[in-house]
Amino acid sequence: MNEFYKKNIISVRNLDKQKLELIFDATDKIIDMSQDKRREIARGKTLGYLFFEPSTRTRLSFESAIALLGGTSLGIADATSSSIHKGETLGDTVKVISSYCDVLVLRHSLDGSSRFAAEISNKPVINAGSGTEEHPTQTIQDLYTIKKEKKKIDGLKIGIAGDLKYGRTVYSLLYGLRNYDVDLHLISPESLRIRSDSTYDIKKELSYTESSNIDEYIEDLDVLYVTRIQKERFPDEEEYAKVKGSYVIGSDMVKKMKDDAIILHPLPRIDEISADVDNTKQAKYFEQAEYGKYTRAALLGLILNENGF
Amino acid sequence: MNEFYKKNIISVRNLDKQKLELIFDATDKIIDMSQDKRREIARGKTLGYLFFEPSTRTRLSFESAIALLGGTSLGIADATSSSIHKGETLGDTVKVISSYCDVLVLRHSLDGSSRFAAEISNKPVINAGSGTEEHPTQTIQDLYTIKKEKKKIDGLKIGIAGDLKYGRTVYSLLYGLRNYDVDLHLISPESLRIRSDSTYDIKKELSYTESSNIDEYIEDLDVLYVTRIQKERFPDEEEYAKVKGSYVIGSDMVKKMKDDAIILHPLPRIDEISADVDNTKQAKYFEQAEYGKYTRAALLGLILNENGF
Amino acid sequence: MNEFYKKNIISVRNLDKQKLELIFDATDKIIDMSQDKRREIARGKTLGYLFFEPSTRTRLSFESAIALLGGTSLGIADATSSSIHKGETLGDTVKVISSYCDVLVLRHSLDGSSRFAAEISNKPVINAGSGTEEHPTQTIQDLYTIKKEKKKIDGLKIGIAGDLKYGRTVYSLLYGLRNYDVDLHLISPESLRIRSDSTYDIKKELSYTESSNIDEYIEDLDVLYVTRIQKERFPDEEEYAKVKGSYVIGSDMVKKMKDDAIILHPLPRIDEISADVDNTKQAKYFEQAEYGKYTRAALLGLILNENGF
Repeated sequence: MNEFYKKNIISVRNLDKQKLELIFDATDKIIDMSQDKRREIARGKTLGYLFFEPSTRTRLSFESAIALLGGTSLGIADATSSSIHKGETLGDTVKVISSYCDVLVLRHSLDGSSRFAAEISNKPVINAGSGTEEHPTQTIQDLYTIKKEKKKIDGLKIGIAGDLKYGRTVYSLLYGLRNYDVDLHLISPESLRIRSDSTYDIKKELSYTESSNIDEYIEDLDVLYVTRIQKERFPDEEEYAKVKGSYVIGSDMVKKMKDDAIILHPLPRIDEISADVDNTKQAKYFEQAEYGKYTRAALLGLILNENGF
Repeated sequence: MNEFYKKNIISVRNLDKQKLELIFDATDKIIDMSQDKRREIARGKTLGYLFFEPSTRTRLSFESAIALLGGTSLGIADATSSSIHKGETLGDTVKVISSYCDVLVLRHSLDGSSRFAAEISNKPVINAGSGTEEHPTQTIQDLYTIKKEKKKIDGLKIGIAGDLKYGRTVYSLLYGLRNYDVDLHLISPESLRIRSDSTYDIKKELSYTESSNIDEYIEDLDVLYVTRIQKERFPDEEEYAKVKGSYVIGSDMVKKMKDDAIILHPLPRIDEISADVDNTKQAKYFEQAEYGKYTRAALLGLILNENGF
Repeated sequence: MNEFYKKNIISVRNLDKQKLELIFDATDKIIDMSQDKRREIARGKTLGYLFFEPSTRTRLSFESAIALLGGTSLGIADATSSSIHKGETLGDTVKVISSYCDVLVLRHSLDGSSRFAAEISNKPVINAGSGTEEHPTQTIQDLYTIKKEKKKIDGLKIGIAGDLKYGRTVYSLLYGLRNYDVDLHLISPESLRIRSDSTYDIKKELSYTESSNIDEYIEDLDVLYVTRIQKERFPDEEEYAKVKGSYVIGSDMVKKMKDDAIILHPLPRIDEISADVDNTKQAKYFEQAEYGKYTRAALLGLILNENGF
């Protein structure tokens, strides 16, 4: 029996290196498989989605993943505006939707929402983003992309740049990177540094430098992971404009990078990476988006099939 | 040829006991069937839905039902806000959508809407709730749940409590119960009693008591069907608060119930049943929700297959 | 190899008579095919849709077409209100969604949007309506309906009536009709005549008369193509009321038409065709809607299969 069978995916903290590698291997297998074989993996299975925060990209990634495996999806793309939510508790909604599907994908703004849902649901629950720190399937996708493009994760010099304070993607990625021996550099404006309370656990297992100057590291990085800097985070517009400018990755900056470095981004990208970077060989963020379809398919395949696939 | 083949399901009034039992038997069959056999029942068929009142729960129940049978669904989840409705008549919308599917599911606020649609549509129409009194698939689900959990319907002592004046579910259930020999008690605040004009027909075939005191009956009931009491129905908040409180089913009240009694609710539940009731053995409202997937699948299977399945 | 394999469908201007006839033949084949064979054509394929202008009808037509072929659809029904669009460029959105599907269907208000998307997308792009002039799949559907119902297109006397100035459907149809030898009459209020700048190219290949009097032609037409006259196009309500009235097709007008003439309309119809026309044998607009499912299925089948089907 594979160890993901009928299991919940709540937090990347529960995914050790062995588990991550198992998912990566399953992803390789999915990519190499014939379409006909792939479509047997979730034949007749239904994925239910329940998004209390709308996230079209993540939802469609899951929908395309289950379709790839021959399954179907149904659910609620925007539960806050949906009739289902009028005064109903999260627990009741989860209970009902889980009886309509074989695996439930939940997105919710509250920390702990997925764990709570998993206790109530009759079906395995996958956290598609919750609260301030958790986004396990994004992290699996991110780590898989690094591994696929760089052939390894251990030993790499990785920079994460942009807004590190807000946005669950970064925290989730840090938790994931604990499993690897990497040389990590966090690069952000002072005011957008990672929250130290959240990294208390991380620090024991993961060392990193913090800096606000991307130029210090750019030449040595193997991986540059860029995140969006959102205007709403700044008290005044001038401050925002100043900060924003100094974290835009342009083709000039890419020229300083190693030839085989890669640039990632969880997307959507606004203007923190210039359009002219898209055609450089370092730009891998669209590949990263596509890999997300395959990592999610692999995960679904493992959860839905006792003996894997 | 099965008698539901290519037929419309407009009103529970057209479903006599023999027809209901036929659907119940088909539901049992669906539940017991292997997934592979089940997926042949609507292979290559498309369910079209057209919801002029949004009802996520009912829509997803139908979507999960057709998916269970190997079919697909498409349609309009909120036709009032959809571009399709801009000035277009219901008839035109029905005509077009029915040409995109094999069976059409319609939800509409007007009495008679489904009957009208059925006359216009090239495909069988299922009423997924219309006007003040009709919700046949909910009633099939309710009656099936009673039968499944109590092994019979005839001879049972059934209480229906809450707001009986508004809400089509109760009227539809009463029409369904005419087919059975039950001991029926309607329990509601004076101001929310069932409309006597609507029960003119029912009364000839179904006798019941009316009361505002749930305690009178609670110890003897085999089935307690609870409905939501909506704040909007009351002229002032105090009146609402008073009434609401006296119809909340808590675990204390459940202790007075028979051991093998069952509590049903069409859901969503707000606070008319306390959360601590969920873990009592009488609570069957979530099972009821799940059965709805199977009763709808059975109905679709009968409508779409000449010789049943 | 069929010439549509992996090709984009951007403009009807790229579809010459030979290509159109190829699609029509494929449509005939789809209609005549057994359901089981049909479902092999896009088995395991996913259609992605991206609608920046909501158009439920066109979207559902595509969804029903891919379902008919055994495929799946996913996407964004209203991209302007979707989270995916918050500041993201069209290019990025197209790039990501195209990695989730096998063929991408785009609806966008801007001229050139589909051509741009096709350059960026990894998958074939089908224009489901863009800008002021392009709606190739609607035109294919319109021409197929004429051919199917009249057994030919060449030699027919065709009238297009209503608002010819706004609405991409008419321009697209004119471009399509260039491929045929037809006797064409454009009938509209003065203020809603076709834009002469847009027809500069058309005029070289297609001759037509312009008139504001529908009665002049009604008796001789083989095809009457009616379009909606929208209130918003008029500076004042009186002007609108006057114009509207004189372009309403009623059963009296249909009596003047040839027995074997046909009336088409891209739908939705508001009141420019009276309901009593629906039952005349000339009314073919609902058949036209249904044919759209099959023409789109044929096109998808050709794009997705190297050797056709």
